[in-house]
Amino acid sequence: MTTIRDVAKLADVSVATVSRVINDKGYVNKDTKNRVEAAIQALDYRPNDVARSLFKGKSKMIALFVPDIKNPFFPELARAVEDISNQYGYTFILCNTDNNNKKEITYLQALSQKSIDGIILVSSTMSSTQMKGIKVPMIALDRKMESDLISVTVNNREGARQAVQYLKQTGCQRIAHIAGPETVSSAIHRLGGYVDEVKNDAWFTSHYIRAGDYSMDKAFEETKQLLEIEPDVDGIFVANDVMGVGVLKAIKALNKRVPKDISVISFDGIELGTISTPSLTTMAQPIYHIGKRAAEILIQKIEHPKTKVQSEEHEVTLTIRESTR
Amino acid sequence: MTTIRDVAKLADVSVATVSRVINDKGYVNKDTKNRVEAAIQALDYRPNDVARSLFKGKSKMIALFVPDIKNPFFPELARAVEDISNQYGYTFILCNTDNNNKKEITYLQALSQKSIDGIILVSSTMSSTQMKGIKVPMIALDRKMESDLISVTVNNREGARQAVQYLKQTGCQRIAHIAGPETVSSAIHRLGGYVDEVKNDAWFTSHYIRAGDYSMDKAFEETKQLLEIEPDVDGIFVANDVMGVGVLKAIKALNKRVPKDISVISFDGIELGTISTPSLTTMAQPIYHIGKRAAEILIQKIEHPKTKVQSEEHEVTLTIRESTR
Repeated sequence: MTTIRDVAKLADVSVATVSRVINDKGYVNKDTKNRVEAAIQALDYRPNDVARSLFKGKSKMIALFVPDIKNPFFPELARAVEDISNQYGYTFILCNTDNNNKKEITYLQALSQKSIDGIILVSSTMSSTQMKGIKVPMIALDRKMESDLISVTVNNREGARQAVQYLKQTGCQRIAHIAGPETVSSAIHRLGGYVDEVKNDAWFTSHYIRAGDYSMDKAFEETKQLLEIEPDVDGIFVANDVMGVGVLKAIKALNKRVPKDISVISFDGIELGTISTPSLTTMAQPIYHIGKRAAEILIQKIEHPKTKVQSEEHEVTLTIRESTR
Repeated sequence: MTTIRDVAKLADVSVATVSRVINDKGYVNKDTKNRVEAAIQALDYRPNDVARSLFKGKSKMIALFVPDIKNPFFPELARAVEDISNQYGYTFILCNTDNNNKKEITYLQALSQKSIDGIILVSSTMSSTQMKGIKVPMIALDRKMESDLISVTVNNREGARQAVQYLKQTGCQRIAHIAGPETVSSAIHRLGGYVDEVKNDAWFTSHYIRAGDYSMDKAFEETKQLLEIEPDVDGIFVANDVMGVGVLKAIKALNKRVPKDISVISFDGIELGTISTPSLTTMAQPIYHIGKRAAEILIQKIEHPKTKVQSEEHEVTLTIRESTR
């Protein structure tokens, strides 16, 4: 393969000069330029992206940080981001952070070494201070971040309120909540929406709220404990579908029936909720669409840094299946 | 940020010379070397990966091609490959190919432009001819490819035989098969294993084989049609878990019971099979492990091109759950 060095050698100039000609950047005198162009033609040299990114500081690469691609909410987001990246000619990098701040920072440093063009963050660990020094365009997805970073999310609080309202409409009188992790903005807003709707109810005490961590197993344990202490619960709003499946399993293990004894409604709208028996009534997010929008906004920030971009909050949709009365 | 050009300018040498010093490659006279090193120190210059990859032709990047990350078999593979990449200091690139040959070729070309170090392919479309020109180290994962490419797979044929044997042991007498796509090696071998076990049975005709495409919806349709034509089927071996869920739904829609009327066993061992009711008996692949091995072998090929590497075939494990008698 012909390299930029071969061209430089034949044209008897430096590699930097060849690059200036290729990228049409900086001054090169006309004679030299002609000589370089002749060498490029003679050797049939095609400058590669690596050479281009060295001199432009651009790599045509976008990264997505997710806690864990194995969590079934993230593959659809990742697919959307990759589709849009690909459409605009960007290569897609995936990083699993395990919600680990140290891992996130290490990825950030490694990627700036590669002149990454932009990063989409599903993160709840990075602070404003940590992000201050970073010059790479970034956008938050799914979760708002402590810093003032632009974000693409859904109306979590309003969606949670609608979920609880629907349980009430269908006859539930004592509605519990299995919450997500208390450090994650989506979980905090869903908990907030639940509290908005139940705080004035005579029966309500904080016993009705159990702290999950968005995982199935923890939701299973918490629901079992909840129903042993509060056997009169007749409706549960669960902060995500994955935990919703754990809740269904716990109710079954206690020999109660869904929805006859207890109605269950969750949040997200992933495919998993159609597989369980009963299938899960849920507040469905436009998952692919928010991933797509995050990628589009990021690319706009990269390619037109002066355009103003704004945060977006999309709406969730009540999707009625078998787990509610 | 200090660039390689700033160093070159201060040291009064070409960019190529600075790179030779940084990468300790090619001849540089001692005086020049000292001048470059002094300039690097004075400017606190840290060579970035882009500069390094330009001169070494290495990018410290590995790519994984999958048909679609939304198919729940692939996130676990992707997680394994990313974990190992990260451990060895490689950045992980994910490409969704949709089993589309044109898309695969376009990705390949784009990635060689970025001096990608190696590629892991879950592919069934690329031919030997198409892969001949490609110099990048590659390895096939999950599916064997037409070319002689080294692969990491499981013993699909033997696993399928064990699945059918298990149905027979538990009393099934007329066992059907919902096959995967006929172009995919894993599906062909699973079909082969099924035929090995039933071809001498008096009842067996090709009616008992229906062509699925590894998707839930198609499996649902095929199973309904199968059971209308062959109502005596009392066992179904399904080529993957995703289709297994479709089969369960079809049997339920026809008001038959699993496993009382029909036993179902599938293949893969993804989490989905524990969510369905009944949960799916399956031939479980060591999914994370094969992803990990593919990444390790690829990195060995990249870093020690002279070491001999060999294809690996891992074993599947019968995992008994509720869908068999």
